[in-house]
Amino acid sequence: MTETNHQVLLAARPNGFPKDSDFEIAETPVPQPGDGEVLVRNIYMSVDPYMRGRMNEFKGSYIAAFQIGKPMMGGAVGQVISSNHAGFAEGDFVLNNNGWQEYFVRTGDKLNDGMDLNKVDPSIAPLSAYLGVIGMPGMTAYVGFEEIGVPKPGETVYISAASGAVGAIAGQIAKIKGCRVVGSAGSDEKVAYLLDEAGFDAAFNYKTQDLNQALAETCPDGIDVNFENVGGDMLEAVLNRMNQHGRIIYCGSISGYNDTKPRPGPTNLTMMILREVTLRGYIVTSFMHMTGAFRRDMGGWLKSGQMTYRETVVDGIENAPAAFMGMLKGENLGKMVVKIGPDPTQ
Amino acid sequence: MTETNHQVLLAARPNGFPKDSDFEIAETPVPQPGDGEVLVRNIYMSVDPYMRGRMNEFKGSYIAAFQIGKPMMGGAVGQVISSNHAGFAEGDFVLNNNGWQEYFVRTGDKLNDGMDLNKVDPSIAPLSAYLGVIGMPGMTAYVGFEEIGVPKPGETVYISAASGAVGAIAGQIAKIKGCRVVGSAGSDEKVAYLLDEAGFDAAFNYKTQDLNQALAETCPDGIDVNFENVGGDMLEAVLNRMNQHGRIIYCGSISGYNDTKPRPGPTNLTMMILREVTLRGYIVTSFMHMTGAFRRDMGGWLKSGQMTYRETVVDGIENAPAAFMGMLKGENLGKMVVKIGPDPTQ
Repeated sequence: MTETNHQVLLAARPNGFPKDSDFEIAETPVPQPGDGEVLVRNIYMSVDPYMRGRMNEFKGSYIAAFQIGKPMMGGAVGQVISSNHAGFAEGDFVLNNNGWQEYFVRTGDKLNDGMDLNKVDPSIAPLSAYLGVIGMPGMTAYVGFEEIGVPKPGETVYISAASGAVGAIAGQIAKIKGCRVVGSAGSDEKVAYLLDEAGFDAAFNYKTQDLNQALAETCPDGIDVNFENVGGDMLEAVLNRMNQHGRIIYCGSISGYNDTKPRPGPTNLTMMILREVTLRGYIVTSFMHMTGAFRRDMGGWLKSGQMTYRETVVDGIENAPAAFMGMLKGENLGKMVVKIGPDPTQ
Repeated sequence: MTETNHQVLLAARPNGFPKDSDFEIAETPVPQPGDGEVLVRNIYMSVDPYMRGRMNEFKGSYIAAFQIGKPMMGGAVGQVISSNHAGFAEGDFVLNNNGWQEYFVRTGDKLNDGMDLNKVDPSIAPLSAYLGVIGMPGMTAYVGFEEIGVPKPGETVYISAASGAVGAIAGQIAKIKGCRVVGSAGSDEKVAYLLDEAGFDAAFNYKTQDLNQALAETCPDGIDVNFENVGGDMLEAVLNRMNQHGRIIYCGSISGYNDTKPRPGPTNLTMMILREVTLRGYIVTSFMHMTGAFRRDMGGWLKSGQMTYRETVVDGIENAPAAFMGMLKGENLGKMVVKIGPDPTQ
């Protein structure tokens, strides 16, 4: 076993879009587990849009800001290297929230919302999928439809950022629920993926088409449910196209995450009164009680082939900052993960 | 009986804030009722914010645009002058949607959502109150809390345009439901009314105070439910102050009704994700099935003295345009009505 632990630290809070110097790759000794503690080697780590917010200084959110000079945090899947805790054995695979580092030590006891150390079974899904389709992004899509938007069969569901980690899963769930599903993405290759592989009924490239016109063409009967990942101009165009009693699942607003000054919101919010629209923001960690139902349903859909997924895998923890910045620019198709070390299941 | 019928016609579609020349006072003969028809003399007519939208050219809303050269429409209470319909007798008082004119003829049969000709009982409430506290504005407030915002006892409810026709009633309903109620209005006199007469726990003058600071001071525990009548900058300040799982009853957006070009929306909509806020637009006419429950509850509150109300009464149909424009500027305290002709119950 190597003696060196590589970690990605937050070096500086980004001003606008992050740059290389906002991150620092640190070498520290591999920590040793004390009484009741577990040493884990991470295999895959996640890069997600919400992490951009944690790089800022802020208060009063559902989650704490990253600290300068400390490792960044986030979802990861690793393997137990040594354990002084009866609940964990060497070789166990564990989903954890200690990404952005190769090795970490953690008490095996549950500390918070179940994200501390959770054993995962590689016979149900590949390890990396626990960061994607059967992990937090998949559950975000699942909760959005089960609890927030609740589409009915035959309704039109429109998904922005549809080829991303959450969007592509959301679209397939909406298809399973019997909806007509429309998506937008940022390249013709992604649009082809939505149509040919993910089973969307219609899709368009938002970078090359007028949003209002594209939505009119792809959603001729209007939008009943919008799974919104983008915000800004996208949300404005969506509001123009919403049907009476439409619902907007307000999951993300990636268009504004790197703004240095506040960007004006949609000019047409009053459409929400005229069309009696509901716009509801949510955070998946408020729905952890649904984890069992999610894993059961998603496991079944994966097994039956109703759910497919793509991953964009970047190799090496030293490339995690580039992977993260690439994800913010939309370079990924499906879930973006970083492979930190060897995967013994492959 | 006079032979002349005065009507207010839409002369031109306003560009921005309406002006006198957008209206025309017309003199026409008093119509004669045919078979199955009823002749009504209006006594009170309503001026409401939503009418501003109907003066524009538009399509695809829940309600039709007013037509140039035709009488404007809206809630009114009148008395049957002569009837060729078995369901209506001379002397009956009827709530109708044919305001902006002294006399009109209508079939007594229900045509649409119950707003056609509905008998009202002046022993339950004064005739003008059927345009306010026990009419559409009162029901708008009632539905907002019963169906949209659903505040719990002890929660903080914040109401913008709180001294208006809907806001003042909304505040009192929230008090009846055991909430801490905070409101804003556009003059110190209105603020005094909210505190001294309508029973609000706190109130401020939004024209003389910084919105964010005033909300921080008057809502020290944040806002759980916002009854939103204003939109724009007000909504932005509210979003900064919303509590986790807060609800926004999106009733109106009067700040933007006279804009000639689209005004940017709140820059901070992503707060809705972080705080898991629900923003829901609604139109009271979608909840007509609740009319019975509303009248029963509101009748009881009026009788018990739990509900008080104010009216601003303008005399004479020729002054209806000025009353309407004054209401849009916030010159009213409580419901603004126009007295068109003598009220035999007074």
